[in-house]
Amino acid sequence: MPELFHEIENCVTAPQGFRAGITISGIKSDAAIPDLAILASDVPCVATATFTTSSTRAAPVLVCQERLKSGKAQAVIVNSGNANCATGEIGLLNAYRMTEYTAKLLDVENELVLCSSTGIIGRQLPIEKIEAGVPKIELRRDQGNAFSEAILTTDTRPKRMALEFQIEGKTVRLGGVTKGAGMIYPNMATMLCYLTTDAAIEHEWMQTEVRAAVEDTFNMISMDGDMSTNDTCVLFANGLAGNTPIDAQHPEANAFRKALRHMMEYLAREMARDGEGATKLMIVHVQGARDKDDAVLAARSITLSPLWQCALAGGDPNWGRIVAALGASGCELDQNTFDIALGNVQIVKQGVAAEYEQTAAKAVVMENEVTISVDLHLGDGKATAWGCDLTHGYIDENTLYSR
Amino acid sequence: MPELFHEIENCVTAPQGFRAGITISGIKSDAAIPDLAILASDVPCVATATFTTSSTRAAPVLVCQERLKSGKAQAVIVNSGNANCATGEIGLLNAYRMTEYTAKLLDVENELVLCSSTGIIGRQLPIEKIEAGVPKIELRRDQGNAFSEAILTTDTRPKRMALEFQIEGKTVRLGGVTKGAGMIYPNMATMLCYLTTDAAIEHEWMQTEVRAAVEDTFNMISMDGDMSTNDTCVLFANGLAGNTPIDAQHPEANAFRKALRHMMEYLAREMARDGEGATKLMIVHVQGARDKDDAVLAARSITLSPLWQCALAGGDPNWGRIVAALGASGCELDQNTFDIALGNVQIVKQGVAAEYEQTAAKAVVMENEVTISVDLHLGDGKATAWGCDLTHGYIDENTLYSR
Repeated sequence: MPELFHEIENCVTAPQGFRAGITISGIKSDAAIPDLAILASDVPCVATATFTTSSTRAAPVLVCQERLKSGKAQAVIVNSGNANCATGEIGLLNAYRMTEYTAKLLDVENELVLCSSTGIIGRQLPIEKIEAGVPKIELRRDQGNAFSEAILTTDTRPKRMALEFQIEGKTVRLGGVTKGAGMIYPNMATMLCYLTTDAAIEHEWMQTEVRAAVEDTFNMISMDGDMSTNDTCVLFANGLAGNTPIDAQHPEANAFRKALRHMMEYLAREMARDGEGATKLMIVHVQGARDKDDAVLAARSITLSPLWQCALAGGDPNWGRIVAALGASGCELDQNTFDIALGNVQIVKQGVAAEYEQTAAKAVVMENEVTISVDLHLGDGKATAWGCDLTHGYIDENTLYSR
Repeated sequence: MPELFHEIENCVTAPQGFRAGITISGIKSDAAIPDLAILASDVPCVATATFTTSSTRAAPVLVCQERLKSGKAQAVIVNSGNANCATGEIGLLNAYRMTEYTAKLLDVENELVLCSSTGIIGRQLPIEKIEAGVPKIELRRDQGNAFSEAILTTDTRPKRMALEFQIEGKTVRLGGVTKGAGMIYPNMATMLCYLTTDAAIEHEWMQTEVRAAVEDTFNMISMDGDMSTNDTCVLFANGLAGNTPIDAQHPEANAFRKALRHMMEYLAREMARDGEGATKLMIVHVQGARDKDDAVLAARSITLSPLWQCALAGGDPNWGRIVAALGASGCELDQNTFDIALGNVQIVKQGVAAEYEQTAAKAVVMENEVTISVDLHLGDGKATAWGCDLTHGYIDENTLYSR
């Protein structure tokens, strides 16, 4: 079967009517790095988002949550280098100010502008730098990739994609970017994600679809179990493709759903691969769980185990740590029925060591991508989670971050 | 007020009628290290225990759980170097065999012998080495410290204590040892703990007290969030002190309770301090939580944050990570009311940065013991948790463990 969509360039500015721009405002101490960026649509969008469930949500998250009650947005301004979290009323005021400067630049209503911040927690935003920086931002159709780079913190590379497909015979585009490398244990992930499309989409359906896709993608990645204060994932749909708004009854709803899920899974996986200090992507498939919730518990517990993450870093197929993680996960489990494979090497059969070549298991964990497959043989529940290994690089990255 | 108890030597063999012995059986690849040990009372004991809640509990845990239904035990045999976990029916048979060899050596009933194993998961015990090793073990009154050393795995030092105090004017002794350095996220901890006393204690009261003390001590430590398959904490009381059995109505029940809690808190704290690769002990006090459960969530979340653990390792007072951990903990929290102090430096007041000297905060986190105090100002709930920092040492210890 041919793919329903194909990849194109320019990520978030690939869809019609989206532009982006960046500048170096000086928020980051290293003055040569872009740290302020705007993404905007030429016309108002239907928009929906998911956010961190932290109870110490950052000021920009509070602003976005308030503004998205309308189901509409047109632009977002993002700074890196400062999270604007644990900053109280001043922080909230500064978040609103960021949106006001942007609204003025773009000549749109304040209420249609969202904002995000990422970086260190607990310091007030240098708002004067943002005020001075915004007017310097020139929004262009070819700046999607520049936008994807300006929002990075400790990421080693941008994570971005654009897809093109057809709805009602019309060309539709979907673009996406994410950042996130540490403090990654989504619910939402420690991540910022912006998705854009020129498809017309009905708000309620969009909300349902984005939430469901986040559950299966961004909420299934983990680097370190640390949930962030600033996680944000927004989808903007400006309707310029001219299709009938997509809702649950739309005959081609599934085409959009597939493209959206393909992109979000790609971005989630690439975030896991680019975890702080990571040298390996860990992919955990669990099947045969009593139900999906149990499968999620089991899969995430394995990606979250620092001991297994260390074994992976060392290329050591010490699968006992997978067993311990499964046992600690809270999922229903029968010690006499579960199987585990590393790559295509079955290492555990019915709860005990299977017959296998140590060299074959070792070869699997030496790869840059390691797949762990667990079958609990208890039911139909299945889930996939993504993680990474735990290395000196993670420690180095995080021992001196605030200096 | 003078302490009701004072410290004495010989840990678990300090109480009357307890003896211990060790040998080098060759389970550990390095043949020069003791890896098999027995602790026994001259007479049957009232005994109770708590165990890991993992659903992949190891064979020796299953054996202990079955045997302790009687509320009685007289001895325990412990091997290090192999966890006897994920070993199926053969593993269970081997666990029973360990107890049979021990029962024969001591001339006691099989049913009064417990067993523990700690080490790598997923390999069958070399039972013939244990069979050959047990008869070589000579039990003596002065071998408590040797016992505390033989049960270690990656620990850098033994954790042990003995206390002496009075009940009904009679001298009573309580001894304790623990091991545990990695895979530490009790519920129980990845730990083995043996407690001995010559006090006479009524079984039901003992069970209630041990469980409650475990909740506040061993279940409040964390190194890496990995829960073990083998966690075990047993208290043996042989009654040789000759007191009236202690129960809830006993007028001096509190003297025993205080000694027990003092010892368990000490052992828990020392386990956290000796976490794999740890260079610092982290002590987290939370007060003002809505209730105790919330305080526990908040305190443990901070000890569990790899990002904060890394900051601690680097001597970086990057308290935003404490805020993020609090936010992610699931405890009720008002962003405008919480205070945080590092040592005696208040760094957060009502949810935002307090006025403080960066050098003072820095000095606190450079110490070997770092206390974090959180007041949520919402209620009376309080809790204390212990953890450690996350260093290259942890990674090194765990990348090549199984080789």
